[in-house]
Amino acid sequence: MLSKNKIKLIQSLSRKKNRDETGLFLAEGNKMVEEALRSDFKVETLVCTSGFLQLHPEIRLTVKELIETDSESIQKASLLQNPQDSLAIVRKPSNPEPVLNLKTELILALDFIQDPGNLGTILRIADWFGIKTVVCSENTVDVYNPKVVQASMGAIFRVKTAVTDLKDFLKTATRNQVPVYGTFLEGQNIYTETLSSNGIIVLGNEGNGISPEVAKLVSHKISIPSFSSGKGSESLNVAVATAICCSEFRRR
Amino acid sequence: MLSKNKIKLIQSLSRKKNRDETGLFLAEGNKMVEEALRSDFKVETLVCTSGFLQLHPEIRLTVKELIETDSESIQKASLLQNPQDSLAIVRKPSNPEPVLNLKTELILALDFIQDPGNLGTILRIADWFGIKTVVCSENTVDVYNPKVVQASMGAIFRVKTAVTDLKDFLKTATRNQVPVYGTFLEGQNIYTETLSSNGIIVLGNEGNGISPEVAKLVSHKISIPSFSSGKGSESLNVAVATAICCSEFRRR
Repeated sequence: MLSKNKIKLIQSLSRKKNRDETGLFLAEGNKMVEEALRSDFKVETLVCTSGFLQLHPEIRLTVKELIETDSESIQKASLLQNPQDSLAIVRKPSNPEPVLNLKTELILALDFIQDPGNLGTILRIADWFGIKTVVCSENTVDVYNPKVVQASMGAIFRVKTAVTDLKDFLKTATRNQVPVYGTFLEGQNIYTETLSSNGIIVLGNEGNGISPEVAKLVSHKISIPSFSSGKGSESLNVAVATAICCSEFRRR
Repeated sequence: MLSKNKIKLIQSLSRKKNRDETGLFLAEGNKMVEEALRSDFKVETLVCTSGFLQLHPEIRLTVKELIETDSESIQKASLLQNPQDSLAIVRKPSNPEPVLNLKTELILALDFIQDPGNLGTILRIADWFGIKTVVCSENTVDVYNPKVVQASMGAIFRVKTAVTDLKDFLKTATRNQVPVYGTFLEGQNIYTETLSSNGIIVLGNEGNGISPEVAKLVSHKISIPSFSSGKGSESLNVAVATAICCSEFRRR
């Protein structure tokens, strides 16, 4: 049975304040829940139907609290429009120290990404391109926002995310001779520029791009050229730009 | 003044059936409306505040019907959560014949893209990469869906879209020796494969990829390799895959 209190807790996790206070977040939908269970994250409570349990008999052993209920109750608790047979309340990992292996690793640094769908998609891209760490500025949307979790398609459980003062982080990187890349309209053509196999790629806000203070810390300004003739096509979505950057850094 | 009937018409355009019946669609938000006015599309009705009109005095000459009203009335009519100072009722162009310049052009062909956000983003990508035509299967989401228009950021007014029987279109392409590319897990590495400067790139459904009947008509199977080690990262979002494909075809 899903108690009223539990439903209240689940729904409260739509708000960052409550996620911060409880240290919990929500993974919804069967695929996402399966990813959570398979990951190193700690699932505190699993709410699911008996059908879901039959498909995953091993769950009983790994989950702290298991609530077996019917689809209607899940529907009632869920933040999704079309809930499935399961949802998980997951413990957030502690915010890691982001400065690690800077000399060999490729890292994404997000400067005020606002849209949860974009952040989730960026995590999915990072995951695909084997980028292990994504560093978020303090004003970037919360990675544990349910829409981010959803859009990440499980990448949230595999890519390490760290929230930090982006300027301090980039200054440390610079002191350690780590190249800091960022996309700017006036940057060097990404297709012809020599790109290193380590370093940081800074991605800027949806409307305003990289902020002036962060821009000062970018050592390598790059740009994705447009092939459009004449009027129009002023911009690429930030997740799309991320994908093209990651693709260019990884292809050899 | 915005009449009740006009509000009803505007809101009815959220549904494909009504767009098809009237031949009209909606462009909302100032940027989108400005793009509509600048384009070859015919704006039937412009609803805007006096402030918007002052910024665009030339509008009086180009718009068939102009309704000056206040923000509250626009708010009432709008489908957006945060409406701005204008919205436009635009005439849909007639569905063009898609088989044109096949020997020199790069074309995107969409096989059952369901999500309006994805379709809008794909149009924006096409626009950026100078791809003039996007061909949609009959079961792809309607390009004049308000969410598509919004996500396209105006690209809908610049990229030509055609809805057609995709299999027939690809058969015609094949008969004309036009290469048909499509992404498949078992395809050739897109980074090392020689890609032609003309041809068709087929992009498949969000959940299921390219359908089996369309897959048979793909002459060049390609894939975007994952750089992830070990578990996870099964897929890229279709708009992200589109971006990487377009980038690879256009870079030289």
